[in-house]
Amino acid sequence: MNKPESITGFRTVGTTPIRPDGLDKVTGRAVFGDDFKLPGTLYGKILRSPHAHARIKSIDTSKALALEGVFAVVTAADFPKPETKKMLMGEAGSGEVSDLSDNCMARTKALYDGHAVAAVAAKNIHVAEQALKLIDVDYEVLEPLLDVRRAMAAGAPVLHENFIPGAFVMPTEKALPNAGVLRLGNGDVEQGFSDADIIVEREFTSLMVHQGYIEPHAATAVWNSNGQVTIWTCTQGQFAIRDQVALIFNLPMSRVKVVPLEIGGGFGGKDTAYIEPVAAILSKKANRPVKMAMSRAEILRATGPSAGTYIRIKAGVKSDGSFTAVDLYAAYEAGAYPGGVIAPGCLTAITRYNFPNFRVEGYDVVVNKPRVKPYRAPGASPSNFAMESVIDELAQKLGMDPIDFRLKNAMAEGDRLPIGFPCQPLGSREMLRAVKDHPHYNTPLEGANRGRGFSYGFWFGAGLTSSAEIMVNTDGTVQVTEGSCDLSGTRLTLAMQAAEALGIDLEQITCSVGDTDAVGYSFQSVGSRTTFATGIAVYDAAQQVLAEMKRRAAMIWESKAEGVEYEDGYFTGGADQRLNFRELAAQFDSTGGPVKAQVTVNPEQVGFQIAAHLVDVEVDPDTGKVDILRYTAFQDAGKAVHPDFVSGQIQGGVVQGIGWALTEGYYYTDEGRLANTSLLDYRMPTALDIPMIETVILETPNPGHPYGVRGVGEAPIIPPPGAIANAIHDAVGVRMDVLPMDPGAVLKQILAQK
Amino acid sequence: MNKPESITGFRTVGTTPIRPDGLDKVTGRAVFGDDFKLPGTLYGKILRSPHAHARIKSIDTSKALALEGVFAVVTAADFPKPETKKMLMGEAGSGEVSDLSDNCMARTKALYDGHAVAAVAAKNIHVAEQALKLIDVDYEVLEPLLDVRRAMAAGAPVLHENFIPGAFVMPTEKALPNAGVLRLGNGDVEQGFSDADIIVEREFTSLMVHQGYIEPHAATAVWNSNGQVTIWTCTQGQFAIRDQVALIFNLPMSRVKVVPLEIGGGFGGKDTAYIEPVAAILSKKANRPVKMAMSRAEILRATGPSAGTYIRIKAGVKSDGSFTAVDLYAAYEAGAYPGGVIAPGCLTAITRYNFPNFRVEGYDVVVNKPRVKPYRAPGASPSNFAMESVIDELAQKLGMDPIDFRLKNAMAEGDRLPIGFPCQPLGSREMLRAVKDHPHYNTPLEGANRGRGFSYGFWFGAGLTSSAEIMVNTDGTVQVTEGSCDLSGTRLTLAMQAAEALGIDLEQITCSVGDTDAVGYSFQSVGSRTTFATGIAVYDAAQQVLAEMKRRAAMIWESKAEGVEYEDGYFTGGADQRLNFRELAAQFDSTGGPVKAQVTVNPEQVGFQIAAHLVDVEVDPDTGKVDILRYTAFQDAGKAVHPDFVSGQIQGGVVQGIGWALTEGYYYTDEGRLANTSLLDYRMPTALDIPMIETVILETPNPGHPYGVRGVGEAPIIPPPGAIANAIHDAVGVRMDVLPMDPGAVLKQILAQK
Repeated sequence: MNKPESITGFRTVGTTPIRPDGLDKVTGRAVFGDDFKLPGTLYGKILRSPHAHARIKSIDTSKALALEGVFAVVTAADFPKPETKKMLMGEAGSGEVSDLSDNCMARTKALYDGHAVAAVAAKNIHVAEQALKLIDVDYEVLEPLLDVRRAMAAGAPVLHENFIPGAFVMPTEKALPNAGVLRLGNGDVEQGFSDADIIVEREFTSLMVHQGYIEPHAATAVWNSNGQVTIWTCTQGQFAIRDQVALIFNLPMSRVKVVPLEIGGGFGGKDTAYIEPVAAILSKKANRPVKMAMSRAEILRATGPSAGTYIRIKAGVKSDGSFTAVDLYAAYEAGAYPGGVIAPGCLTAITRYNFPNFRVEGYDVVVNKPRVKPYRAPGASPSNFAMESVIDELAQKLGMDPIDFRLKNAMAEGDRLPIGFPCQPLGSREMLRAVKDHPHYNTPLEGANRGRGFSYGFWFGAGLTSSAEIMVNTDGTVQVTEGSCDLSGTRLTLAMQAAEALGIDLEQITCSVGDTDAVGYSFQSVGSRTTFATGIAVYDAAQQVLAEMKRRAAMIWESKAEGVEYEDGYFTGGADQRLNFRELAAQFDSTGGPVKAQVTVNPEQVGFQIAAHLVDVEVDPDTGKVDILRYTAFQDAGKAVHPDFVSGQIQGGVVQGIGWALTEGYYYTDEGRLANTSLLDYRMPTALDIPMIETVILETPNPGHPYGVRGVGEAPIIPPPGAIANAIHDAVGVRMDVLPMDPGAVLKQILAQK
Repeated sequence: MNKPESITGFRTVGTTPIRPDGLDKVTGRAVFGDDFKLPGTLYGKILRSPHAHARIKSIDTSKALALEGVFAVVTAADFPKPETKKMLMGEAGSGEVSDLSDNCMARTKALYDGHAVAAVAAKNIHVAEQALKLIDVDYEVLEPLLDVRRAMAAGAPVLHENFIPGAFVMPTEKALPNAGVLRLGNGDVEQGFSDADIIVEREFTSLMVHQGYIEPHAATAVWNSNGQVTIWTCTQGQFAIRDQVALIFNLPMSRVKVVPLEIGGGFGGKDTAYIEPVAAILSKKANRPVKMAMSRAEILRATGPSAGTYIRIKAGVKSDGSFTAVDLYAAYEAGAYPGGVIAPGCLTAITRYNFPNFRVEGYDVVVNKPRVKPYRAPGASPSNFAMESVIDELAQKLGMDPIDFRLKNAMAEGDRLPIGFPCQPLGSREMLRAVKDHPHYNTPLEGANRGRGFSYGFWFGAGLTSSAEIMVNTDGTVQVTEGSCDLSGTRLTLAMQAAEALGIDLEQITCSVGDTDAVGYSFQSVGSRTTFATGIAVYDAAQQVLAEMKRRAAMIWESKAEGVEYEDGYFTGGADQRLNFRELAAQFDSTGGPVKAQVTVNPEQVGFQIAAHLVDVEVDPDTGKVDILRYTAFQDAGKAVHPDFVSGQIQGGVVQGIGWALTEGYYYTDEGRLANTSLLDYRMPTALDIPMIETVILETPNPGHPYGVRGVGEAPIIPPPGAIANAIHDAVGVRMDVLPMDPGAVLKQILAQK
């Protein structure tokens, strides 16, 4: 892979062609999870615990099995008892296999409202639902644990007898039964606070929220007579699902094949198996294909939302606006099993400013709620909300312009990252100055109860394993097959990079996502990594293809490959030796057959993402309702492969961040039952709730990608809660300390102020 | 690729593991062409010409289109007018694109009974069939051409205004309007006949026959809004169908994706597009998925059977049993378009004996019958029948044992092939001696009207392009993805070769067939090439995988890859440096990611196939009915990868050859309508008609394959008609000159003799 010499002068990268899968998706022709059907398919449904915390004493499935049209009933007894072993990152995320298996089907205890306890496969959905009612489960109801502080307090119920902390997290010194801890620090924090002229210390809480993808989970599984399992599913990672199913059932990986279908949103929530293992074991027992699809209530109750949090921040500055110390305490819900999003939550909170002294204490806490999974920049939004609120308050107390204050402390290339390494090239100051220069910042905001807020966010990005294959057909057209599921148009952004690298027209290239037999191992489409990391694999495969094509040209010209040049679509040798890409491809058959290359990469230098958001709000002082008046999101894309897609990613992330800030949240009853299990009650913003989101794309090339690309998908969800909180303060003078900042919460602060 | 040093001492090659796809196939779980279904699928049906030769004056589709539930109607007007250009072998067989397109949908003339003239897509099959009746076609009926001799005679109707001969065939000197000619020769044939002591000259005819695969053609096509065409079909070649559809519609190859489903038999008849382009264009017009499946009558009338023939042979020998000259004249039906099986038909007739002087004149003749396609050893059975009948008669006239006569003249390694090259290693004499040593040959045949016959056949085999990919998972299991559709268990024979090459257990390996995006270009599964040629690709990919794994081991041991050995499943370096395959795989993540290799081969040295068949028959002199009493088939497999599969291939081929010999044939009315369009009237042998076929596998290693493998699928269909004809002569003293040798034909000869 080469470093980018320039990020201008491209033929295809940076243009905005029409998305090839778009028409099919908007006309209903694309095949999503629920559109796939095999002959003889049965329908599976899951019986879910109504209790947040209960011991399963016995399950009687005999009446369900006797119902006509029922082909199989399964409980945890049909799942192998997994060995306790850490899963590898490369296999299926982090966490124990036993937790993964138990989360698919509760073995001894139901750990949250909606936890699967049994499942049936029947000739149709109606019989399946009827059969669920015939299953008798004898529960011993236990006290539910619904709050991270209660879970860490003395005398709290113990969720797991053998508690093993998740990845990046250590056992607590006090051996808290329900939590692991992450500690990080540098310098002398106490000395730093002694040196401070101003100190602000605040605490914040936030509720659990869901990714809210449009498409419900849906999968079809066939466990055939030969022990081969094939699964068609909507997923962010065909290999992750394959490996998870193989681990749960102790199957060789080669015996499981996963075919990824079109996916209607994932945002981090679709890289974990929920229904796939259940459909597989039902298929094995019923000896028929089994299809399962979740309802919206099942998705909200029993998939993987993001953590609710309790966060405390204490920060000190000198009167010149330089930081002296930061102390961050964060407790994140892990849900029913350890291994949540505490690490990125804490790290992104303290990365982007230079803190000479800092201390981080983060707790990953199990509670009786669904197991937490990543949601777009996992864990970063609530900690950014807390940190940027404190920073806004510090700027206010310093009497400094909030952006100048951030400019003074912004981390830039070469500065020390909290994890110790020097920072890569990062256009932080350029971005903050771009905000100050923007009309939005410079247009006075008029009218009562209106305010402007700002927040600045950071995301690490991800590299990880990506595979791509390029095959050149004899008519000069090209197929790219790659291993990263397409959530956001990445088949096009990868085809564009292939066109750029091969020097041919985009129209000549088709890009598709391979199943687990069709392409090399690839990590999930997560962490904004596809256009970046899989893009590098495509680029490298293109270089191999061109090298082989030079060899073919040399064969035709009876010369040496080193003497063949490729430029502007033409291979040239000596005088009169000139063949364009298509002409050379037409001679493949006579020069050794087709040309194909396959590459797997695991890029080490990922491109950091930064985002700065400016928002104007109006607060109704009588109801506490907050309206977004104007929203401008700045982001550094490194190089925007498809600027419209980058804008779309930014806009989508901002809207989700607005939902997190203002309306979304999981509400549990005291017994631990989720009270809002529909999209009427779990309130996501709609087009009527928000204005057009303006986007400003900056381009500071990422030296780790040949075209300078950085991921863009995650950063935009980080700043909205903080920016909106700061805007509310600017509008009505109250500091918000809770998410969502719904009318009730805002009104409460307004009334308290009075 | 290495040459085989030995063909013994294998771990996996040569064993007989259970076929992994077997259980699913016998229990109805496997997904064949007709089992695949997408939501919103329409059903397509084709309107077929009732005339063997007719000009299409006009087609009125308005009434069909107006029928409720009809979504689209197409005629040839919906197909682009193809440019006249030769197709490449690598694309879609041989022949003109215009012929391929016209055969799918007749443009100006219907050329055979059953030729497609229009098609509809409707909400269900019943509406589609009703709609066909509402299409009005105005035909001008023309004289049908049903016999090759009539077609080459003066004044015959002209089928094609611009007749372009097929591959390997030249225009005739006399510019015959319906035929191309193939000429080949060596030495002085007239002098040879002058030198002969005995000359036999005979003529033979045979009827058109069908492959008789169990599964009807069935395909589903989606032409999406973006111009991407995806086709799920049962085929012998996913790339062939892709390329044919792309050529017919002038689409870039990258815009067509073909997913091969399980296939219920092909035998050469399923590498050509019939319904796929029709389903595709119906889908484009209807904007919905379209599925089509043929009835048995459609298959018999309008797919690609093998040629009926007229053959004349004159052969001369010295009284010592050595040949002086052979003159072969053969006219093969091409069906409606040029490009039949004349070349292999003629070449295999004269290859396997040393003829000092020979002359071949072969004609590829268009007639008003369906377009001929390959059928297992294309064209060889009728010419072998003719040649082996003449040879049997020569031996009789010489008073020589028929096997001794063949032994004297058998071509062996180093002898000159008719095409000029020296013959590769060939166990011809060993095989003929094995026949003489076999109990079947040495057991006297007792009883009236019983006879024993022998025939000896030769087939070239095929190399051509094959691709395979091997991916090693981190649990040490392995996926092989290859581009050759599995007609006969080749997923297993390829997995066995991978296991052998990788030195791991077969159970660790899964082999699957990739779609056109998932694997490198591969020629069709034809010519007995898969286990041989794709096997080489698998072997080479395994070598690449092992080389990379040695590099990984060296990385772990901080040594050089050249110092790492791999033996008996263990990688070893210096002292104490030892990792087995699985242990090393577990360290992939920390040594650079997954290991995958992809290889494309086009082997030049294919392994010739020889087969010798011995048959005992009993002829009923009153009815002419022939019963097979005992049948022994000898074949050289080079190295039998899976001996049970080899026996199965031999038995299947023999049974098809018996059908060709005794009962099968296309019967046309004088108007050119096919009279026997069901499997009751088109009579294939059943298990009740034949005894157990005994098989004898010989192994003369093929130097062109690392394990010595030769293809085995084609040769066994070649000798049966000749062997049975010779047995009939031995039983009742008549020489048969026609196929099938049904009771009527045999009785006619018996009566003529009297």
